[in-house]
Amino acid sequence: MTRRGTDPNRNTLWARAFVDELAEAGVDAVCISPGSRSTPLTVAFDRHDDVHVFSHLDERASAYFALGRARRTGNVTPLVCTSGTAAANFHPAVIEASQSRVPLLLLTADRPPELRDSGANQTIDQEKLYGDAVRWYRDVAEPEPDDRKLRSLRTTAARALAKARGTPAGPVHLNFPFRKPLEPTRVDGDVPADLPRLATEGRDGPFVDVEAGRPELDDDALRKLASKLSEPRGLLVVGPTDAPGVDPEAVAAFAHASGFPVLVDPLSGVRYGGLTRTTPVIGGYDAYLGERVRDAWPDPDVVVRVGASPTSKPLRKYLSNSRATQYVVDPAAGWREAEFAATDLVVADPSRLLGRLSRLLSGTGSRDWRERWTAADAAHEAVLDEEGEFCEGRLLRDVVDLAPDPSTLFVSNSMPVRDLDRFGAPTTTSLTALGNRGASGIDGIVSTALGAGSATTDDLTLVTGDLAYYHDMNGLLALGRCDVDATIVLINNDGGGIFHMLPIERFDPPFTSQFVTPHGLDFAPTEDLYDLSFARVEGGDRQAFRERYTDATEREGSHVIEVRTDAESSHRVREELRERTVERVLDETA
Amino acid sequence: MTRRGTDPNRNTLWARAFVDELAEAGVDAVCISPGSRSTPLTVAFDRHDDVHVFSHLDERASAYFALGRARRTGNVTPLVCTSGTAAANFHPAVIEASQSRVPLLLLTADRPPELRDSGANQTIDQEKLYGDAVRWYRDVAEPEPDDRKLRSLRTTAARALAKARGTPAGPVHLNFPFRKPLEPTRVDGDVPADLPRLATEGRDGPFVDVEAGRPELDDDALRKLASKLSEPRGLLVVGPTDAPGVDPEAVAAFAHASGFPVLVDPLSGVRYGGLTRTTPVIGGYDAYLGERVRDAWPDPDVVVRVGASPTSKPLRKYLSNSRATQYVVDPAAGWREAEFAATDLVVADPSRLLGRLSRLLSGTGSRDWRERWTAADAAHEAVLDEEGEFCEGRLLRDVVDLAPDPSTLFVSNSMPVRDLDRFGAPTTTSLTALGNRGASGIDGIVSTALGAGSATTDDLTLVTGDLAYYHDMNGLLALGRCDVDATIVLINNDGGGIFHMLPIERFDPPFTSQFVTPHGLDFAPTEDLYDLSFARVEGGDRQAFRERYTDATEREGSHVIEVRTDAESSHRVREELRERTVERVLDETA
Repeated sequence: MTRRGTDPNRNTLWARAFVDELAEAGVDAVCISPGSRSTPLTVAFDRHDDVHVFSHLDERASAYFALGRARRTGNVTPLVCTSGTAAANFHPAVIEASQSRVPLLLLTADRPPELRDSGANQTIDQEKLYGDAVRWYRDVAEPEPDDRKLRSLRTTAARALAKARGTPAGPVHLNFPFRKPLEPTRVDGDVPADLPRLATEGRDGPFVDVEAGRPELDDDALRKLASKLSEPRGLLVVGPTDAPGVDPEAVAAFAHASGFPVLVDPLSGVRYGGLTRTTPVIGGYDAYLGERVRDAWPDPDVVVRVGASPTSKPLRKYLSNSRATQYVVDPAAGWREAEFAATDLVVADPSRLLGRLSRLLSGTGSRDWRERWTAADAAHEAVLDEEGEFCEGRLLRDVVDLAPDPSTLFVSNSMPVRDLDRFGAPTTTSLTALGNRGASGIDGIVSTALGAGSATTDDLTLVTGDLAYYHDMNGLLALGRCDVDATIVLINNDGGGIFHMLPIERFDPPFTSQFVTPHGLDFAPTEDLYDLSFARVEGGDRQAFRERYTDATEREGSHVIEVRTDAESSHRVREELRERTVERVLDETA
Repeated sequence: MTRRGTDPNRNTLWARAFVDELAEAGVDAVCISPGSRSTPLTVAFDRHDDVHVFSHLDERASAYFALGRARRTGNVTPLVCTSGTAAANFHPAVIEASQSRVPLLLLTADRPPELRDSGANQTIDQEKLYGDAVRWYRDVAEPEPDDRKLRSLRTTAARALAKARGTPAGPVHLNFPFRKPLEPTRVDGDVPADLPRLATEGRDGPFVDVEAGRPELDDDALRKLASKLSEPRGLLVVGPTDAPGVDPEAVAAFAHASGFPVLVDPLSGVRYGGLTRTTPVIGGYDAYLGERVRDAWPDPDVVVRVGASPTSKPLRKYLSNSRATQYVVDPAAGWREAEFAATDLVVADPSRLLGRLSRLLSGTGSRDWRERWTAADAAHEAVLDEEGEFCEGRLLRDVVDLAPDPSTLFVSNSMPVRDLDRFGAPTTTSLTALGNRGASGIDGIVSTALGAGSATTDDLTLVTGDLAYYHDMNGLLALGRCDVDATIVLINNDGGGIFHMLPIERFDPPFTSQFVTPHGLDFAPTEDLYDLSFARVEGGDRQAFRERYTDATEREGSHVIEVRTDAESSHRVREELRERTVERVLDETA
């Protein structure tokens, strides 16, 4: 890849050196939106054989696509945009990346310093544009064919990647000023021939190799923790995890060594596949935890929590109402625990910690306690397996049941992820279930899903509501443009279905006009706009849905299956099922 | 509107008091996106009879719609969104509003302080989310039924509006923490009956009336300036202005008193209508200013510039190459002058200044100099009026020719505004020509146009390229949802036409794949998605376009007229026309 002496001007050299460093350090893809000021970076990425370029017209969609890819792979995905509001369109995804610890590298082109705040065209204040939502920000030096500056640039690349991949991982923002010529136009004498090779070509491999340790308890602290966990009624709760997630083998080892039930969030990375083959896991808690079960059951003694705060509100309430000792484990020392039920914060890598603990524990977990949870989950499953009225949640159950093995399953906010939690029981199918639960927005959902899909050969299924589908319809352009295939289950209840779960439902107006806000959109024309087939299943025809879904996953190309539903009746059925589950759980476990 | 004693809880009281103050101070519309945390504000706006609610599902589109409305009216348009990334979607429009001095009021709902940075759902760091792009930021106090706090809240409303309407006008951000209940649910005892009436009901009128003066020179400074302007070859350059713009009568008075030619930007507010009925204005400069004309013509002695930096690059270059004394007039002391040609900054209200100067000037302007410009403009017009090859710019000429009187004409970046500048000669038709030239993004164009259209009974025409149309397709939902009619001229050259004007054209790859980035989108299905009719005119058939356009403006409803064009040939014809104009100008004026 060396092009020594061939860089036609300082901008070309500068951008090539930077992109070379990213590629040497393992970056394999970039999302680029067209623009003029960013030309040096765009050209450098386009010319690099080892970096795949995904081209996006809408920067908001681009950033979410990069987020999805980085979420799926755990690897940094850089983004390039031109100067101006283009960069501000990244902001929503930057916040989601920050909160869910996804490594992004934001490369925004800028005017040179003398043109900032001058009234120059397409020039805004890009400095610290994303505030505290990035792990690191640098206004990169102006390109200059200077030995020390080029070494600084190469170091900056290494450092930016290390920050993005750090603990916690997250977005990093580098602002690149460029002045004309932006194109690879030859400027005689602009790049001296006698620049040191190290500056122009870097090393064989990254300019700086980074090995970053992760926090680990010392042996004394570990033994002390192990002794505190030697209780009959313990729980391991695995919340949503960020890539690469928690090691299923470590969870399994801990579960076996402790004898504790393991409650697995749908986004924990261990509800589906690997772990379930060796270890019973609990996934139905959202349906049955609540005041009645809490009163009927003994309180847990000790809880170990890894990952982010669980998706399930009943589970969070259960934990906050418990008097148990609760260990929140977080390698990044994040206090992600809004119930304020934690008694201990353990700053340690969760996989290492669980693995090490498993070698110290002696199976104090009570069999009765364990079987209580297993029986409750079974009762919940039995209720769901009965014939019954349709509700949106059953679609999530069908998807988990029918998704090809392996699949990436992306679930939107606000209802699909909750329905997956309650209806999508653990299975041995290798489902990588993902969602944007950092900030839980309904924006950027399509793009995040397609970005995740771009990273693997797994089948990709996205389950989304109509508001999220509308919000990021622009993201559908990536189906053809970025060559991603997806099966999209569009649950269309014509507006904000989740509001039926809130007290505002009793105040109409403004409930319908300002909260549900029905839009009446007919999404079928998205078939003609984008590279997809569109089919509609009338609400409640579950068999038709199952057939359509299976068919879609078996065919080439991308398919939207719209299911028209009624949010209010879905909510009612959801509640009825929950009541039946609770009754059954109480019957069988109390 | 008083509901003394009827507020069911503190949140309802708090939000009602705040919204009452906005309405008393002249706010007549709000853009709201559905969400839960913002419920108190949404309910208060919905219940207020004097505030029209525009409901938007995509917060990015909502913010641009509000921007367009505020740009058209000069009045503050508030925006409401829920907590989380919703607020970050406002960011692009906030930056545009900041740079083009449009008054917005961003009302973001937030979790209460104890839940911030806690891992709570849909909770992000919203403090100072827009950085330096807002004129004022406050984290509003938590709602409390307390006399002093309510008076503080009412004062905050007045103050926020004053800041947004200040000099310079711009966006203001108020972050509102709310805790449950968010709905107007009665909470016994929550709102004491004995709160002072002033706190609960405010005054008859705004709680604080604001009268803000604008900078004005003292008489000595004014006389000194007038004497400096007593030169034969002067120019008044009116760049893009922010609402309410510069007073046409003041411009006319100055023009007559000074005898200076007046160069009017298409977004100056004085190229079309009012001013043109009494005063000859110059609008063709973009076509003929350049090295050859500069060499052939005498240099100006003095230039007075009001408004932002002109859209026309040839004009900017002309000014920067001149040795004239150049007065940049700006009431907000903004140094919007990236050519760094200014010799003097005059901090004063431009309309007042021009009006006062006109009473001191004695017509020193040279007739020969004036006629030179008039003749050049006439030469340009003559070239354009000849039969000739099609180019995109001719569409702008047709629109200016055919637009109903009065009309609001919104032009997108990057080419339509440039083509309007060059091809859209001054006319007496009352055209309010608007564009987003603060940051010159191609994002949010559809929404900004529709927001502008929502504010008047004028006909609305939007001229946009395909990238901008795609980028903000979501904005088309407002056609039906917000009851706005528009005629949309969609110039579709399948990608980034402007890049043909840049040197990167010579480097292919990556020119086509990463810069033009053809998308191949067939936009006809937007007819079935949104409330519009869609018609296509093949490139070059100008007569068909003129008929379609006239027909569209005469019919009810919204109409998209897509014109398929070839960016490269348009660029070539644009250049050929420019060359012919320059020849003719030199012939007739040198």
